[in-house]
Amino acid sequence: MNRPILFRQLFEHLSSTYTYILGCPITKLAVIIDPVIETADRDSELIKELGLTLTYGLNTHVHADHKTSTGELKKHFPKMQSILSEKSGARADKYVAHGEKIKAGNIELEARATPGHTNGCVTYVNHAQGMAFTGDALLIRKCGRTDFQQGDVHLLYKSVHEQIFSLPDDYILYPGHDYTGQTCTSVAEEKKFNKRLAKSEEEFVQLMKNLNLPYPEQIEKAVPYNMRCG
Amino acid sequence: MNRPILFRQLFEHLSSTYTYILGCPITKLAVIIDPVIETADRDSELIKELGLTLTYGLNTHVHADHKTSTGELKKHFPKMQSILSEKSGARADKYVAHGEKIKAGNIELEARATPGHTNGCVTYVNHAQGMAFTGDALLIRKCGRTDFQQGDVHLLYKSVHEQIFSLPDDYILYPGHDYTGQTCTSVAEEKKFNKRLAKSEEEFVQLMKNLNLPYPEQIEKAVPYNMRCG
Repeated sequence: MNRPILFRQLFEHLSSTYTYILGCPITKLAVIIDPVIETADRDSELIKELGLTLTYGLNTHVHADHKTSTGELKKHFPKMQSILSEKSGARADKYVAHGEKIKAGNIELEARATPGHTNGCVTYVNHAQGMAFTGDALLIRKCGRTDFQQGDVHLLYKSVHEQIFSLPDDYILYPGHDYTGQTCTSVAEEKKFNKRLAKSEEEFVQLMKNLNLPYPEQIEKAVPYNMRCG
Repeated sequence: MNRPILFRQLFEHLSSTYTYILGCPITKLAVIIDPVIETADRDSELIKELGLTLTYGLNTHVHADHKTSTGELKKHFPKMQSILSEKSGARADKYVAHGEKIKAGNIELEARATPGHTNGCVTYVNHAQGMAFTGDALLIRKCGRTDFQQGDVHLLYKSVHEQIFSLPDDYILYPGHDYTGQTCTSVAEEKKFNKRLAKSEEEFVQLMKNLNLPYPEQIEKAVPYNMRCG
């Protein structure tokens, strides 16, 4: 079997967050995307069992619904650097700009700025495997909310259409969350079946205005923590 | 991108069950493994959106913790046939014997008898992609219980060691359940790190004797239903 990369998708039940590990099978260097503090021990144990060394801990954005574990993971992997968008306004060891590449062995991720849920949102694209990690810009058949944390409904529509829907149809999209037990989707599916973003911009704006979502439970603790520890 | 098969892993929260869809991108024929009644609508909607036609609904065994949706799915896909092991003793449209191949377009699954959790347990192996669907014979770092439904601790040890651990190290293993937010594992990892089955048979037997697990909540309803509708 040709296994070009080591890949794991992990779930954290409390905030329904997906975390991703991508590892280079040759150099054993790895990155983790959107790790959660509650599952830091599970994740570091798995990374060690896989024989990997964490190079980067990436956050797609400053999360409002959970604390990131990038700070925790540094205790297990002292050489790991945290990464955030330069637009996030939060503290990180390294900032990425739109179009910049992050490398760990044969893992290469292109950072695409996809603001709208927050203004520092980034989608990380692995072109070699045809995978993209969309954070909360695009969820399966849905998207992240736009009603706080510099949310901008017009900007989110533009980000998804220009930066995610412009990827090849068969690219697999891995979201930051899912609440329905689905694990991934594809560009083709979301262009056709996304219940929000497959609509016109006008319909999307109306729909997002009328979501009437509750205030996120963890926001008061999560955002200040993630601003310092992103 | 070369996408030799369409593949989806799906989760049902109530019973922590994983369901799998494998589809042929050319003929659009597909199989579903271990579908759950609560998520039958989600699954059939997704299968239709993916443009797939269900040929077979496979159960790895007669489940004690949830009702299968193979009966429900036939309403959406009237040509679908349910499949179970010939050793299960339950009703199904088609029975598979050890070593038999199930085909749907370019999807080929080898049925390997892996009794011990129940005596009709089957692991389905897709050699082309290096994937195996282990049901409850092997869970990530764990295994199914052996204290009811013809459970046999010695037989489970033999099944896993002879039929699953004999697969190539880099084969990815997809379990019937996970309770910790992990989605898959590999043969190499389980041989090394499985907290039960990486031990000697004697240690395994002792460990399984002392699990003191509660009686499964859904068993009184699920087993009779699955015996008729497997």
